[in-house]
Amino acid sequence: MARAASLASAGELALVERLAARFPGSGRGGAVGIGDDAAVCTPDPGGRTLLTTDVMVEGVHFDLGLTTPRQLGFKLVSVNVSDLYAMGGRPRHLLLTFALPRQTTLAFFDALLDGVAEAAARYGVSVVGGDLSGTSGPMNLGATALGYASKPILRSTARPGDAIYVTGPLGDSAAGLAVLGHMAHARIRPADVRSERMKLPAGLPAWGVARPCVERHLCPVARRPSAAMVRAATAMIDLSDGLLIDLGRLTRASGAGARVELGRVPVSGGLAAVASALGLDPLGLALGGGEDYELLYTARPGVRMPGRRIGRITAEPGLTGVDKAGRARRLKAEGYTHFGGG
Amino acid sequence: MARAASLASAGELALVERLAARFPGSGRGGAVGIGDDAAVCTPDPGGRTLLTTDVMVEGVHFDLGLTTPRQLGFKLVSVNVSDLYAMGGRPRHLLLTFALPRQTTLAFFDALLDGVAEAAARYGVSVVGGDLSGTSGPMNLGATALGYASKPILRSTARPGDAIYVTGPLGDSAAGLAVLGHMAHARIRPADVRSERMKLPAGLPAWGVARPCVERHLCPVARRPSAAMVRAATAMIDLSDGLLIDLGRLTRASGAGARVELGRVPVSGGLAAVASALGLDPLGLALGGGEDYELLYTARPGVRMPGRRIGRITAEPGLTGVDKAGRARRLKAEGYTHFGGG
Repeated sequence: MARAASLASAGELALVERLAARFPGSGRGGAVGIGDDAAVCTPDPGGRTLLTTDVMVEGVHFDLGLTTPRQLGFKLVSVNVSDLYAMGGRPRHLLLTFALPRQTTLAFFDALLDGVAEAAARYGVSVVGGDLSGTSGPMNLGATALGYASKPILRSTARPGDAIYVTGPLGDSAAGLAVLGHMAHARIRPADVRSERMKLPAGLPAWGVARPCVERHLCPVARRPSAAMVRAATAMIDLSDGLLIDLGRLTRASGAGARVELGRVPVSGGLAAVASALGLDPLGLALGGGEDYELLYTARPGVRMPGRRIGRITAEPGLTGVDKAGRARRLKAEGYTHFGGG
Repeated sequence: MARAASLASAGELALVERLAARFPGSGRGGAVGIGDDAAVCTPDPGGRTLLTTDVMVEGVHFDLGLTTPRQLGFKLVSVNVSDLYAMGGRPRHLLLTFALPRQTTLAFFDALLDGVAEAAARYGVSVVGGDLSGTSGPMNLGATALGYASKPILRSTARPGDAIYVTGPLGDSAAGLAVLGHMAHARIRPADVRSERMKLPAGLPAWGVARPCVERHLCPVARRPSAAMVRAATAMIDLSDGLLIDLGRLTRASGAGARVELGRVPVSGGLAAVASALGLDPLGLALGGGEDYELLYTARPGVRMPGRRIGRITAEPGLTGVDKAGRARRLKAEGYTHFGGG
């Protein structure tokens, strides 16, 4: 079958066989894989089962003019694994649900599976099933991840006084998206850039400086919590919609609030360079930008924990930001949501 | 919030809160429900975990001019539960993934949840999470079902000599789809029909006769296997794509074939009446029509089992049909597949 051939000419059976060959039968945990009515998994002894699902819709979550299918497949797995990591979980199995236009090429399909396979190997998960459908509309890529945790870490169990940590720099993904917007306007596809020193439009820094932000957006890596974090975290959430929105969710679920030391919110050098070139506020990108997939967690104060401490949980609800001069201001939970709202 | 208001005006937070209120927290099995990064379920002691997912795409799987949102929600749950029943499983938890156009009304959203809730109650499953997204294109409704089985019944373990059973009449859903086509042409929506005696177009029987077929198509009920079936079935599959396709899958997976007694394939009176009116072959609908969601299973011969025995597994691969006069002919696996093929 020529790789330029469309899925319609390949036929469903051939596609399912392609999937089954790519992700052969029994994964970890003695799973029965693709090819039966349902996948069969042997539960982790003693653990509780974690289940999550996330969908990526063309035109909403991604633009096929900017991302490669391999990056798409990788990101689809990462965003689901990130949700399990955020519960202190061990990801194990994955289902895929692809609704693809009939004219999609086999080459695209294979590259999408390449990205899924690369991420699955990285995170130690096995693809055990899914559902394949045609669609007349935008591509819709979904995944469900199943994992295990001895003691799941919820977002609702932070306590006043707890210190708040993030595992890495924030805002990179939003900065990457801004760079991609300018590249698209100048008709430069990231996949076509061959030199780290290539000049980007809009006074942006060279590709080598901006690239980490762009890759963070197109192909994020889920942050695995360390054993110390799983042991000591009182609450945890992954940063998918932005620090303020996600911290807002964690504090509301915990019946609490938070005080954030704005000067301690970590930003990368790449983000600083991109923000400076585009006249954007780096702190604004770090507070409001989504899709970084770092973890935000809380722990009892006075314990040295991994990541950057950025504030503390308060009994009083709402989010307050404190600048380096000690001036406090209310922060509004802002970032990306579907259908608007918070 | 007015129910004619759109999802875009309601905002994502309000929609997720609506979902969480509709499907409150801890379901059976001590699940942590909607509102954290992932759902937490306590595995069935001794059981193995079953996981399946099925997506319904507007324009491919359903037509919003023919189905009500309540029927859609019910069907979405049924098709997923059916996959777990087909493994001899006990369904427990459900994730929902909806990609909805922004102009979708709150009334539609609520009715969709009504249908999901009705089916969830019927099958004893709890909705524990999901993902909500906008889309510029056709509506995409997905669900993932998790369940348990002490001894999963695969489709790959039928043995030559086994008797083949189906749990109920076949072809009703295909006949219902044919009726719906004629009703759509005459601009009659099933939801608007008020009398059982109402005349349908194209010489079709009265609504009261055709209705069971139409409802089978729009709002199928998954067939729960009896304890005797779970104990004795050597292989099982649900009839989602049609008898010939699904029996073909079961026999291929088992490295075997089948001989079908065509005169024993069960058809309903409604199907016979619809087929007669439309000049369709009832047996053709029963062999090729999908979406009946009856179960097809095999058992050692000589045991009295529930349902209708329609043939036996053969060592020789392929499907053979035998008519009442004893004449045999090869049957080709035909029915509905995405992207064509078998």
